[in-house]
Formats: sequence, structure tokens, C-alpha cells
Amino acid sequence: MVVVATPFSCGLAARVARRLGEELLLLERRVFPDGELCVRIPSRVSGTAVIVGSLYPPQERRLLELLLGIEALRGAGASEVVAVVPYLAYARQDKRFREGEPVSVKIVLKSIEAAGACALVTVDVHNPKSLDEWLAIPHVNIVPYKAFAEYVKGLGLSSLAVLAPDKGALHRAEGVARLVGAEFDYVEKRRDRVTGEVTALPKELEVEGRDVVIVDDIISTGGTIALAAKCALEAGAKSVYAACTHALLVEGALDRIYAAGVSDAAATDTVPSPISKISVAEELAEALLKLGL
Amino acid sequence: MVVVATPFSCGLAARVARRLGEELLLLERRVFPDGELCVRIPSRVSGTAVIVGSLYPPQERRLLELLLGIEALRGAGASEVVAVVPYLAYARQDKRFREGEPVSVKIVLKSIEAAGACALVTVDVHNPKSLDEWLAIPHVNIVPYKAFAEYVKGLGLSSLAVLAPDKGALHRAEGVARLVGAEFDYVEKRRDRVTGEVTALPKELEVEGRDVVIVDDIISTGGTIALAAKCALEAGAKSVYAACTHALLVEGALDRIYAAGVSDAAATDTVPSPISKISVAEELAEALLKLGL
Repeated sequence: MVVVATPFSCGLAARVARRLGEELLLLERRVFPDGELCVRIPSRVSGTAVIVGSLYPPQERRLLELLLGIEALRGAGASEVVAVVPYLAYARQDKRFREGEPVSVKIVLKSIEAAGACALVTVDVHNPKSLDEWLAIPHVNIVPYKAFAEYVKGLGLSSLAVLAPDKGALHRAEGVARLVGAEFDYVEKRRDRVTGEVTALPKELEVEGRDVVIVDDIISTGGTIALAAKCALEAGAKSVYAACTHALLVEGALDRIYAAGVSDAAATDTVPSPISKISVAEELAEALLKLGL
Repeated sequence: MVVVATPFSCGLAARVARRLGEELLLLERRVFPDGELCVRIPSRVSGTAVIVGSLYPPQERRLLELLLGIEALRGAGASEVVAVVPYLAYARQDKRFREGEPVSVKIVLKSIEAAGACALVTVDVHNPKSLDEWLAIPHVNIVPYKAFAEYVKGLGLSSLAVLAPDKGALHRAEGVARLVGAEFDYVEKRRDRVTGEVTALPKELEVEGRDVVIVDDIISTGGTIALAAKCALEAGAKSVYAACTHALLVEGALDRIYAAGVSDAAATDTVPSPISKISVAEELAEALLKLGL
């Protein structure tokens, strides 16, 4: 087996290769004067190739690098190519929200399959059912509960509560909470009918005097985390920490989070960012071994 | 039938719709804070939809708009979706030029097919055999000989010679020359063994005292056209005109061409540009009618 890093996923690819004890190859990349990309596998390969390509912004450019990499690997001798996509772009457009819109995630998944991948490994996809729905190839989606739990344990907090910022994210908070032996809940938004003000309070859990860790899949603008943090502090939380899988961090997101009173923000390395200090490499390596390729 | 314009191909799509006498729909497009695109078909459709999406730079962004548009149309009621791709990006990477490289055009074609297009219409693809090789769906590639011929006739030149800048482009010069009743040839590059200087001269045709029109598929940096023009003028040509199908016009390309002595440069409307004054709409409309959808 060989692990191949697309140019903007080298760090995580290197960590996965090290854990697997496999060779790491860097996909070469150049850009023609008209902006077209060309990639190249620097040597012949044999057996299974694992290509790591995260689809963070600019998403379409990253997608094409991955697709070209898969195609190049097939031409370079790989018997099969497993695509590891740590951050799957367009995963949130998993249905037609309005009539006339596309199911965008279907397009991304079908392109990866059409490029010649034999299997797909993803991390914390917004709606993992999309994978079952649109892929014919084998696929695994890992949720990095263990990596989150290690981060939370490392914080050394005494009276811990793990919160999901909405009901859909509860499984993530629950998974982490069970591993660290803490209580968990999700946050419910309520709009005051008179003032119009939006507050966000845990559904049932009392956070007064507790150290709260909010766990979510994506931090994009940071608005969701900032609101949940602000409200937890107003409800008497001793401190608030934020952890997410994919730190997209649209401009101003970190300012927004820290201004809301968050003590520390952390993310996994599916998207390289200033807060990406949790690695999913161990769980990715395990998933790849389980695929049995 | 309905003609749907992706946001950066509206002009040509409108001209095709007018020639077909069919309704034109504009694909709505918005961008989320993290850079993800969303498109939308503004109304229900029925029967065959023709979506026009040219893949000029930024190529990957344009490709995703097209793919999302195809998927949206299928959800919006289209019984089948014909993709019209006036400029097919990555068409020049039609083979593995170096070991380890991908056949990039294959990735683009497979993605369009996987998105759900039932047929593909292209204009002057660098190597039309790529279409036969990588597509299972019906496909037509038109070369706008007639549109070029009208442009050349409109120049009102008296002693005409049509030149291709290399042997591979000869069919284009020949097609145009036959329609305007002119002689044609291709230009051969020669490198002086002593000085290293590159000259480019017509293989056989004498250009002294003649009005020369150079016809090529793509103007990217303009280097090829500039060299051919300079050499034709040095060989005594009275004037030199340049025409191409796809005016990518990398920064400085027009300067380069006019500095070489070209009297006028023109391109088709497959790529909107300051010189895109020749329309392929008529020939596209004919091709669509011939598909019989």
C-alpha cells in the first residue's frame, strides 16, 4: 500500500502514512498559464493506493486535484485507489432545500466514483446517509469521538458538561461525553416573542458552575458556536470550550468565537487551520485497515 | 425544449435559444460564506433541457456550476439534459504526456456524464477523439468553419492565404479556405542551428504580397500566433489577421499579438472576450436540431 498526499492535505496524509507504516508519496502539482492544473505521481506504484484529498476552500480546485490524482494513480500502476476525503465539500447540500436546487453532494460523490476510486473514506460528513444514497462503491465515515475525547481530557476540567449546538449534533456530544464520563445535552434556540431576541439554552442540563465543551461538525462563520457559548456563560457556566471537526473559519470566525467568551477553540486536522490541533489520523488509519485492502 | 444558461455563458445561450426559437432560462447562482456554490432553476421544466456552460477560467468553478445545473435540471422535471460545452477545459491534456500524469480531459468528460447529461455538444475540442474514447453518451463536436468564413469574407481582402500555425491545425485552415475560395497551408517552425533563433514559415505557400489569415483553436498566451504573424510579415505578407475559436487570452496575449503586427484579431463567442465577435450560435443550433431531441 502507498499513501499519496494531494498538495493541500500533506500534513494529515503524512500522519496517516506514519501510523500505517506505509510509504508517503507527494502528488506533484503545477498550473498552466491559463490556470489549468496538472498533477503527477512522481514514481510508478503497485498494489493499493490511498489518496488523501480534503475539499476545503477553494473547494472545486481541491476536488479537481483529487480527481486528477485518482486518474493519475490508475495510470501509474495502482491496482485500486481508495479516496480519503477528510472534509467533504458540499455535504450540507444533501437534499433539494428549495425546488429547482441540486443535491450538490451527489455531484461531488458521483465525480469521485466516476474518476475511478474503489472506496471512499470520509470524516464526520454532515449527513452520512448521503454516502449510502449516492455511492455504489464501499464507503466508511468516521466520527472522531476518540480524538475529541483525548482533547477534552487534556483540558483537565473538573465539572464537565458536553453540549451539541443543535439536536442534529447530539450524537457527537453524546459519543464524546460517554468516553470522558460527562453529562451531555443539546442546545435549543428560542426566540423571545416580544423582543425578538434569540437565546440558546441546553434542553435540560443545568450548566451553572460547570465547564462546558461545545462540540460541532463545522465552524464556518462561528455564529452558532458564539451564540451557544454566550448563552452558556449567561446561564452561569464557569467556562466554555469549543471543538469542531472541520474548521472552515470564514473570515472573522475566530474573533466571533473568542469575543463570545470561549476560553479555547480546537478543531481536527481535516482542514488545516490555526486551531487544528486534534488529529484524526489514528481513526483514519484504523478505518483503512478495516477496509482490508 | 428549453435552453438554460449557466451564469457565465448567458450571451451565447441567449443567441442559441433565439435561433432555436426556444425559451431561455437563466440558472440562478449564489455563493455561501464558505465559498460553496448553489444554483437554482427558477421554474419547473418539462421535456428536453439544453444547458449551456462554457468552461473557461476559473475552469473548476465553471465545471461545478455546469454539473450542479445538470443535476438541478433533472430534479426540476427535465426528461433529459443535453450539455452544451462551448469551451471544454482540460481538452489539451488528452493523453499522459509524462508518466504519472492523468488524462485530465477524461475526468472532465466522466464528471459531465456522471452528473446525468444524456448528450454532449462541444465546439472545436482540441482532440475530438477524446470524446469517442471517454464518453458513453452521444456527442457532437462542431468546428465553426462557416462562422470563420463569414468573418474572413467580411474583411474584404483581395489576395487571401489562410494559414494554420501548425500541422495539427491544418484541417481548420483548410475548412475555412475552401469556403472562401483561398489557398491554405500550415506553418512550420524551424530553429536555426547556429543562432538558435526560431522562425515559422508556411510549408509551401508563398505569402509575399498576400493578406494572410491565421486560424487556430485557442489563443492562450498568444505566443504561437505572434510568432506566425511576425514571420509571415517578414516573408513579405501585405497584412496578417488572426482568428481563433477560444480566446482564453492569458494576461498580455492581445498586446503580444498586436505587437507582432497583426491587423485584427477575432475569436468566437465560446469564451467571452474583447475580440469575441464571431458567433457559433448558428452552428450550435444546427447541431442541436440534428441530435433530434
